[in-house]
Formats: sequence, structure tokens, C-alpha cells
Amino acid sequence: MASMNSRFPRRSGKPGGGRQLEQGLKRMAENDAAQKPLLTQTTPDMVRGLSVTELERLAGEVRELIIDTVSKHGGHLAPSLGVVELTLALLKVYDPHADRIVWDVGHQAYAYKILTGRAERFHTLRQLGGISGFPRIAESPEYDHFGVGHSSTSISAALGMALARDLGGKKHNVLSVIGDGSMTAGLAYEGLNQAGGMGLDMVVVLNDNEMSISKNVGALSLFLSRKLSGPLLTKLKREVEGFLKSVPRIGEDLLKYARRSEDSFKGLFTPGMLFQSFGFNYLGPINGHDLEELIEIFEQVRNLKGPILVHVLTKKGKGYAPAEKNPTYFHGVGCFEPETGQALKYGNCSYPSFTEVFGQTLCELARQDEKIIAITAAMPEGTGLTRFREEFPSRFVDVGICEQHAVTFAAGLASQGFRPVVAIYSTFLQRSYDQIVHDVCLQNLPVSFFLDRGGLVGEDGPTHHGVFDLSFLRHIPNLVIMAPKDEAELRLMVKTALSHNGPCAVRYPRGVGLGSPLSDGLNPMPLGQGELLREGKDALLVAIGNRVHPSLAAAERLEREDGLQVAVFNARFVKPLPEAQLMELAERFKTILLVEENVQAGGFGSAVLELLASKDMLSGRTIRQQGIPDIFVEHGSQSELRARLALNEAGIARAVREVLAPAAKL
Amino acid sequence: MASMNSRFPRRSGKPGGGRQLEQGLKRMAENDAAQKPLLTQTTPDMVRGLSVTELERLAGEVRELIIDTVSKHGGHLAPSLGVVELTLALLKVYDPHADRIVWDVGHQAYAYKILTGRAERFHTLRQLGGISGFPRIAESPEYDHFGVGHSSTSISAALGMALARDLGGKKHNVLSVIGDGSMTAGLAYEGLNQAGGMGLDMVVVLNDNEMSISKNVGALSLFLSRKLSGPLLTKLKREVEGFLKSVPRIGEDLLKYARRSEDSFKGLFTPGMLFQSFGFNYLGPINGHDLEELIEIFEQVRNLKGPILVHVLTKKGKGYAPAEKNPTYFHGVGCFEPETGQALKYGNCSYPSFTEVFGQTLCELARQDEKIIAITAAMPEGTGLTRFREEFPSRFVDVGICEQHAVTFAAGLASQGFRPVVAIYSTFLQRSYDQIVHDVCLQNLPVSFFLDRGGLVGEDGPTHHGVFDLSFLRHIPNLVIMAPKDEAELRLMVKTALSHNGPCAVRYPRGVGLGSPLSDGLNPMPLGQGELLREGKDALLVAIGNRVHPSLAAAERLEREDGLQVAVFNARFVKPLPEAQLMELAERFKTILLVEENVQAGGFGSAVLELLASKDMLSGRTIRQQGIPDIFVEHGSQSELRARLALNEAGIARAVREVLAPAAKL
Repeated sequence: MASMNSRFPRRSGKPGGGRQLEQGLKRMAENDAAQKPLLTQTTPDMVRGLSVTELERLAGEVRELIIDTVSKHGGHLAPSLGVVELTLALLKVYDPHADRIVWDVGHQAYAYKILTGRAERFHTLRQLGGISGFPRIAESPEYDHFGVGHSSTSISAALGMALARDLGGKKHNVLSVIGDGSMTAGLAYEGLNQAGGMGLDMVVVLNDNEMSISKNVGALSLFLSRKLSGPLLTKLKREVEGFLKSVPRIGEDLLKYARRSEDSFKGLFTPGMLFQSFGFNYLGPINGHDLEELIEIFEQVRNLKGPILVHVLTKKGKGYAPAEKNPTYFHGVGCFEPETGQALKYGNCSYPSFTEVFGQTLCELARQDEKIIAITAAMPEGTGLTRFREEFPSRFVDVGICEQHAVTFAAGLASQGFRPVVAIYSTFLQRSYDQIVHDVCLQNLPVSFFLDRGGLVGEDGPTHHGVFDLSFLRHIPNLVIMAPKDEAELRLMVKTALSHNGPCAVRYPRGVGLGSPLSDGLNPMPLGQGELLREGKDALLVAIGNRVHPSLAAAERLEREDGLQVAVFNARFVKPLPEAQLMELAERFKTILLVEENVQAGGFGSAVLELLASKDMLSGRTIRQQGIPDIFVEHGSQSELRARLALNEAGIARAVREVLAPAAKL
Repeated sequence: MASMNSRFPRRSGKPGGGRQLEQGLKRMAENDAAQKPLLTQTTPDMVRGLSVTELERLAGEVRELIIDTVSKHGGHLAPSLGVVELTLALLKVYDPHADRIVWDVGHQAYAYKILTGRAERFHTLRQLGGISGFPRIAESPEYDHFGVGHSSTSISAALGMALARDLGGKKHNVLSVIGDGSMTAGLAYEGLNQAGGMGLDMVVVLNDNEMSISKNVGALSLFLSRKLSGPLLTKLKREVEGFLKSVPRIGEDLLKYARRSEDSFKGLFTPGMLFQSFGFNYLGPINGHDLEELIEIFEQVRNLKGPILVHVLTKKGKGYAPAEKNPTYFHGVGCFEPETGQALKYGNCSYPSFTEVFGQTLCELARQDEKIIAITAAMPEGTGLTRFREEFPSRFVDVGICEQHAVTFAAGLASQGFRPVVAIYSTFLQRSYDQIVHDVCLQNLPVSFFLDRGGLVGEDGPTHHGVFDLSFLRHIPNLVIMAPKDEAELRLMVKTALSHNGPCAVRYPRGVGLGSPLSDGLNPMPLGQGELLREGKDALLVAIGNRVHPSLAAAERLEREDGLQVAVFNARFVKPLPEAQLMELAERFKTILLVEENVQAGGFGSAVLELLASKDMLSGRTIRQQGIPDIFVEHGSQSELRARLALNEAGIARAVREVLAPAAKL
């Protein structure tokens, strides 16, 4: 149905091969190109006025813009391509200004952004000052009614909106659009349970592509996809057969029928049954790429009362062959060659990423220690665990999008003598805070947390920066917290974490390493010991994690440009702090800067201040925190953001100069 | 079935009145008393050897011990009384040493504790150094296989244990015992989904008493209790009727039958269907007070494979009439008169509690502002919202045990111009950390959080102390954080929070107020302004929240006993800090103590250190944090714990003396 005016490869198999066909397609493309594009300064009012044929053409144009833009700046391609028709259908039937459409996670909202007045600016996607990769109230108060970024919030938020509407005596519709992947998170279930219980008018659109970020997991996904051939079907059959047998006279007949007609039998156990048990009216499943069907259903739905679930089947990456073929890779993707889908290399750097070094090292250790279990929450690729999964399938568990469960499940394993490793992005581990405190650290269980994407992540922006972790972890008793200066140190910290008989967290940044040579051997590092990397006499930089090397570079620049001798200490440990070393250094320096890519409030620098206060070592010193101030940091490239926040070499050098300046004047 | 040797009122209606009967009961009690008690140094081995009749007698003795102990020290009475027979049946069939029984929340594990070697020490329940109110590995490594305290962790933990068993080639059973209230939390659903998907051998015992702490809510609870008379049943009927109509020949017949026989129709939609859709084998519902039935079922279950859910119906408070009548009150209860169930007054203090003052004040404000909505997570009584619920039923929402949803739901309301108030205990709000960051503060929405039980809660111990909140909230941008020195200030802070157009958190302690006179009027306080309560010259105490008055008392004692002039500043705000006032004070004082009932790491004192560092005001000063060190604090009374941690008047005075001592020597 998608229009054919694209220069990108369409999904394979649709119009089959042959030279004649190719020529035909080419002609069609030329005809199409001659038509005036529908997608200009498109507003929802315009969309509402289009015919189904026009909407189909518009779908093609929207896809083209999405593919073109994402190929240049990276972004969430596959999820957004999957919902183009769904978005158009919603905009045809609903009024996105008066009605409230909450897009779960929000990375599938590109088409929505384009069609609600942001087509012209869409080329700025995810760039500093440009369009955000997620819905944001501040970006479009008219059309983005709720900001999102983490999964599974949309049902709860929409329910709040529905109650607000009813209490305020208003009449508009409220919709949540949520993927089947997001349904595995407990928050979605909590929202569903409450919404069904309250019975307010609202619509949950289940966008079912049988994927979360990676392949979907858990019992629910089997149920949704109606792959009921396994034990689940057997159980359901047993249950129903028991009931049918109890029905006098006709029960046996029906039983025979049910047994004969497997399909019909399965039909009884639609996903609808599940949602109905939550008090929802169920409609579906519906072909999510058939505009006519979608519009018809939503027109019907608009007039229904109570909580309604519309089950829509979509294909992730729809309409772009490379993304359809590899939706996991194209879920969130860097720059690529649009004609082929081939990735464009990260600059011309060929160093391994922190993620890769973590994954490799963990495999090495797992070969020697069969107690090591790797756990991820729907992100085997993103967290570098694909090799582990291949090599140790029985010791790898992808729990799906449910970070709370991941942590408590790991605690259960650790309580039985295993060494679970939980690999979750820093920002998503926020959802496990209570479980880290209560299930792991309170019981002092040896669970190791590996927080990828710690610090500024760049283009994904404020919903995804991992800049709170040192602060939300540091105050938890029993937890050891490390951050490596480079990938070589990360390797040793993986070993250190797995050698320590208690909870550990290692936090490292998004992106490629620094090319530091990786050791062959693997020795654990002594807990609470840092390293003095550079001597000096004018000032001391105490840095942690990925701010150590920029601090070194800043010190070198200060020597070069200002003749200053600045010492640099790599703390390695946020907890326990390298106490003796810090005390010894504090004795020698009057000017100390504490450098970290984390919020200052309660972070690493704050820990050093607390230590020095407790030892009565504050006096006679100027101590400054050089971290992220008390704001949410916008989206933009990592290097742009670091420059703005004075966390790169130049910024750190400038900060040292500023602190030393008044002293120099004396 | 319970033995009759009790001096406590049995549940009403069981053996009906009449003088003759009473005499009979008395005789029976005397006979019983003549029998040797079964409950002495009871071990699981002994329990396994008992007959059903003996187990029934033992149930009575266990209940008596629980009632007697809780009446003296307070505790979770009703949940524990409800599962006495269930516990006995599990111990009859399973081996609690080799097998793993994980008690969800754990406050229903009193009988389990008593029967696994802790009967003799049970009288020390919840007292300093005594038996904990929750399962704890450290207390009984043999029988407590996992520590609990917050709800809904047991399925995830048990699944981890089941995987550990299989990977380790072991054979024991793994069970989770979870209440229907705990089932409303997303974590339980995440565990269920994963367990069903993995298919390992494990048993989930659903202890269904139709209650969480308060009355249960949500669609699931309707489904579980099979109160299918409402719209849910209508929907299910429509669905099945549609299917039946599609069946050729016999469908119509069956339809007629189904319509005639409502009961049988309902029977088709057992809770089993729901759990089966998660891949569990379902057994039940079973009478949870019939030992014979319970034992029979569990003997059967022990031989089954895969994930199994056993649905057990129990009565909260079973066997103690006052608790059966008012299970919410007796959920977690203070000391009471065992014969009548009458509460014993908190000392002889008649001041209103912080909880009551909050609830009262909120009602006053809600009368003037119809945008105020109150949200609680299964704790209308505990958070003081019962009056609000009565007065504004349409603006009160109890979401059940699901703190994540509570916060995102509030964010949805706030995004539409409402003023939601989320009242959750400090310790439970830990579960909403990500939602507070992501859904509320990032969007700068005016949600007000009221954190009851902030600081040390006393006898509930480390799983329930609210000592991390200032640290896990302080680093979140846009959030205003306050803590009142007394109930009069709390009143003004409720007003302040609801007058501020952004997110706010107010944190106050468990217990009665100080008797400070409550204002009639309600004026908001200026943000970021504290008050100097006492002048001085020798040292400055900067205190927050419930440590302000003890600091004042300490200052008075220091004047009395040591002739010292110690100033006391009530900061009121953790964020924004009263910056100008603190700077002015820091200019004047060389010795500063920062006093808070929160962990030192990242807490209030840490914020003051950060401020002074940023202003280059550390030099020439001795600054000490007087808060909770980096440990999990045990259970014990609030006053005992404060004394141990040097957070009471005497401890604060001692800390001042210690800091001033070296200076005095010079």
C-alpha cells in the first residue's frame, strides 16, 4: 500500500522480481514524483481532510522523511516506521489538539511529530536545539500532552488525564499507544489494573510487533502472539475440556467439535480474554498497515464507553527492507547509508566500545566461573551480551523490559551462591532503585551491576542521560561503586566486581574506548584505591570515570599554556573512597577540583567533601565541584554537551584557572 | 477447628452463645490446659510428625503466642493470624531447610518463625536485638532463605532460586507465598510473566484474603474474588457467546445452556484462566483454614512440574474476633489489650500525630481548591487520608500497592491542570524513584509528595526506615524538598507545597507531634528560607525536620551544663537551601554541625557542604555531619535507635562537645 516514490529499498517479496516489473515501478515512481508532495507544512487539520488513497501516499512521504533524517543523525528508525499508518489513522479520526494521545516510550512518535506541524524542522531531529527524539510538552504544548522516554508510563498517565477530564467536565478522548514490549513492565500492568478497576473512558492501543527492543520474552508475549502450540495450549485445553465435560447432554458433542477444530479452539483464547479479565473491552487484532481497516475501527471506538483495548498488529521497520530484515539493529541506530542500510562508521575510529570490552571480559570470566549468570532487560545487544548469550545460553536471561524484576531475580540467584551480573543502562536502572536497596544491598548479596551509558548519552537527551547514578547509588550501604577511566580499566573492574563478595556497581560511558591497550591477564584491583596519574603543586584534580583523561589533558594544557603544575588523581572508586590517598593529597594541596560526569548534588565530589569534612580537612582549602549542575541536560552530541557544561578538556582547564585566579591576585 | 484453650475472644458466630455452651467451652479449655503444650522448642521436624488433630491444636497455640506477643509490642497481627494453617500445611509437606519458602512482604511469617526454632525468642519480636518482624537471612540462615519487607518481591526471588537450583543440579522445591494485595504491584506481574515464560518448577501460593493493607482495589481483585456480576461478566459473556454462535449445529444449544446456568458459566472464568494465560498451572481455590485439604493439595503439588499457582482463600485476622472484625486496623498495630483488642494509648500523650495533621490540613485546602486530588497506594489509614476519602470521594484514589503507577498517574493529572497529592511512606516511595525523576520533575509538573514515616520508624527496622529519602530526592532537578520541625510547621508546608507551581516533597516522621499550637490560618512559607531559633557564639547547629527540636534542647543543655552558647538554625528546606541565611551564618561561625535523621551520604548536610564549597566558604571552619552513618539501621524503638546513633538531645550535645574539645585545648 505504501507509495512507490521512494529511492529506498522496499520490503522484500512484495512486488516480486523481473525486469519488466522494475521498469513499471520506475515509471510509477516518476509519475509519483510529478505529483505535488502532500507532506509540506502538514497540520492535523489537513490530514483529517485527506482520502485513504491520499493518506497512503502521505505514508510513503512520511517514511521517506524519517529514513532520510535518521540516516543522517541516527535515531529510533524501526519503531517509528512501524506505526506510520497507525498514526495517520489516529489523526484522521481524532483531534490531537483536543484529544490526548500519549505515545509510550515515544520513540515511535516521529510520524506524529512530522504530522503535527514539525515536518519543516524534522531535519534537526536529536540535534542540539533541534527536535527531540521523544514527545515533550515544552516542544509542542498543543500536541505533545505528556513527555515520555522510559517505557510503560502511558497507561498510567492517560488514566490520570481521563480522570482529569471527567472531574473537569470535559469531553475529549484519551488514548495511550503502547508496544507489546512495553507491556512486560510492571508499570503497564499497574496502569491496566487500575484503569480496568476505575472504568473511565479511555483507549489503550496495543501496538503489537512481537518485539520489544530485542525479541520479546515472557509468557505474555506467547499469549499475545497466540503461539499456543506449547504447554500453554495444553493447559488451556485441559481446563476447558473439564468444563465442557461437565455440561450435560451437549458437552461431549462440543468437546468433539473443539478437538476437531484446533483453530476455532484457539480462537476462544484470544488475547482479548486476558485484557477482559482486567476489565477492558477488547477489539482486534487489526492489520496495523491497512489504513481503511484502522480508520473504520477507530471511528467505531470513538463512540464506545469505558476502557477499551485495540490490538493492532504492525511490522517493526515496515516499508524499509533493511529495517524489516533486522529490526533490532534498526531499533535505535547511528548514521547509515540510506540506499543499503549499511552503517556509517563512528568517525574513523576503530577502537572497541566500552560495551564490547565489557561483553568480552565477562565471557572470559564466565569460562572460568560457572556461577556467573548474565541478566539483561530487553537489551542483549545494547549491553554487549550477545556473545555471552551464544556461548552460555543456559546462563543468560533476558527478562524483557522489567528492570525491577531483573534485580530481585538476580538477588534470588545470589542468595543461592550464584554470581549474577545485571547489565542495564544507567537511566533504566533508575527503575530498580528500591530493589537495589532492599533486595540486594540490605542483604549484602553479591550482585554485580554494570551500568552502560553512564554520564551524558548525547542525542537521546534528558530522558536517557545517565547522570544521576552515582547520586542514587552512593548512599546505599554495602554497595561498592567504581567507574573506569578507560576500557582497559573497565576490564579490570569487571574482574574486581566479580571477585568481591558483595554488591558492586560499575559505571561506564556510551561510545568507543580510548584505544588503551587491553591486558591479557585479569587481576582484581584493591578496593578503595585510586592512582595518582600526574604530579603537581598548584592544584589537584580528583576525577572519576570518563572525566579522568580529559582532566589529564587539561592539566597538560595548563602546563603548556599557563606554566601551571596540576596534579591529577584517578579515584576509580566512588565507594569506598580511596580515603588514605585522598587524605595524603589533601594535606599537600590548597586547591582541589572534583571532576565527574554526574550531577554534583550527592555525587562523587559530594562524597569527597563529606570525607574531608569528617576528617576536619576542609580548612585552608578551596574545593570545587566540577560536575553537572542542578538542571536536566538537553539533547545534543556528547561533545557539544560536555563543552557547554565545561566538562571537556578546555572547560576543566578554564575551571582550574578561575579557581586559581583570585589566589594569583593576592 | 482452632483449639479452645484461648483466653482471647474467638471469631464471632462460630460456637453460638448460651450459658451452657460457655460452660462447655470452659471445661474444654481446662482439659486442653491439662494437655502438654505442643509449642515448646518446636522444630520443623517435630511439625512434620504431627497428626492433623495435633496440628489443629498447635495452630491454636501459635495464634495465642502471636496475639500475646503482638499485644505487648505491636506488630503485623492480622496477616500473620490468617496464614497459621497454611504455614502448618507447608511445614507438614515441605522441608523448610532444603526447600525454599519465600514469604512475600514477610509480615505474615510470624507463625513460620515460631515453628522454625524461634518460639522461645518470639517474645523479643521487633525489640532492639530481638526477633525481626520480617524474615531475615542473618537471623536464620537455615530457614529464612530471603529477606523481605517491601511487597511483591517473592516471585522474582523464587524464580532466581529455581534457576539456581536447576543450574546447580539440585532437586529441592521453591515456593513463593504472596498475598492478593501484593499481586497489584507491577513487580509481581513481572515475576509471574517471566516465571511462566521460563517454565521452571516452582510454586506460587496466592494467599487471597481480598485485602491488601486496606480493602483491595483494581480490576484484578474483582476477577480474583469472582465478583463477576458487573460489566466484566457482561463482557466475558458477550465474547463467549460470540464464539459459541460460531460453532455449527451444537453452538446454539450450548449457548442456551450457558445462559440458563449462570454459575456454571462463571465457573468457566476462574482466576485460573488468568494465571494460565501467564503459563501457570492453576489449582484452587482452596479453604486456607482447612488443614486436611491444604495438606492434601500440597502433597499433590509437590509432585507436579512447571510453574504452579495454588490459590488459597484465607481470612485476615482469623481466630481473633477483634482482628477479623477490623483487619485493616489490626494489619499493623500498636500495643493493645488482648482480651478486648482495645488499643493502648501511646504513652499518655494526646497530641495529634503528624499523619493526622497532614490529613486535616489537606482537607481544609481541598475545600477551597477543587483541583486537589489525593492519591495513596493501599494506605488510606496509614497516610491519614480517611477523612479526605469521606469528604471528597470523587477526588480520592487508592491505587493499591503500586507506587510507580501512583506517581505517573499523578503526573497525568498534573499535566491537565490538577494538583495531585501523593501520600506514600518514605520507604515505599523508593519504588517510584524513576517516575519522580522522569514523569514528574523532568516535566516540572506540580505533583506534591507527602512522605510519612521519614527518618527512623522504629520496630519495623531496616526494610522500613525512611532514611534515604533526602538523598534519593535531593539531586533531582526542579524538586522542592521540605521537612518540618513539628506539626505546626507541617501544616504550613502542606500549604506551601500546594501553592508552589512545580513538584514538591514534604518529609515528616512517624509518631505523635510535639504539641505545638496549630495555626488557624494557612499561609505558604517563602521557598528557601529557614529560621534562626537560637543565637550563640561558640557553635552553630543547622538542623532539618524532626532533628530541630532535639538540637534546640541540646543547645540548652550545653548552656546549662557547659556554659556554651550554641546557635540553632532550622533550615526547613533541603532544596532550595536557605542560601543567603546559611552564608550569613557561615561567616559568623567556625564550628558548624549539620543535623538530620537521614543518611549522611548525599543528604541534607551534604547539600550544605556543597553550597559552602561552591562559595569558597569551607576554609577556616570545622563542619561536621550528624546524621546516619553508612549502615542499615536495625529495628528497635525510635528512641533507642536515636540514642545509639547520637541523634537525640544527649547525642547532639555530645557531638558538639567533641568538635569543640580540640579547639578548647588550643
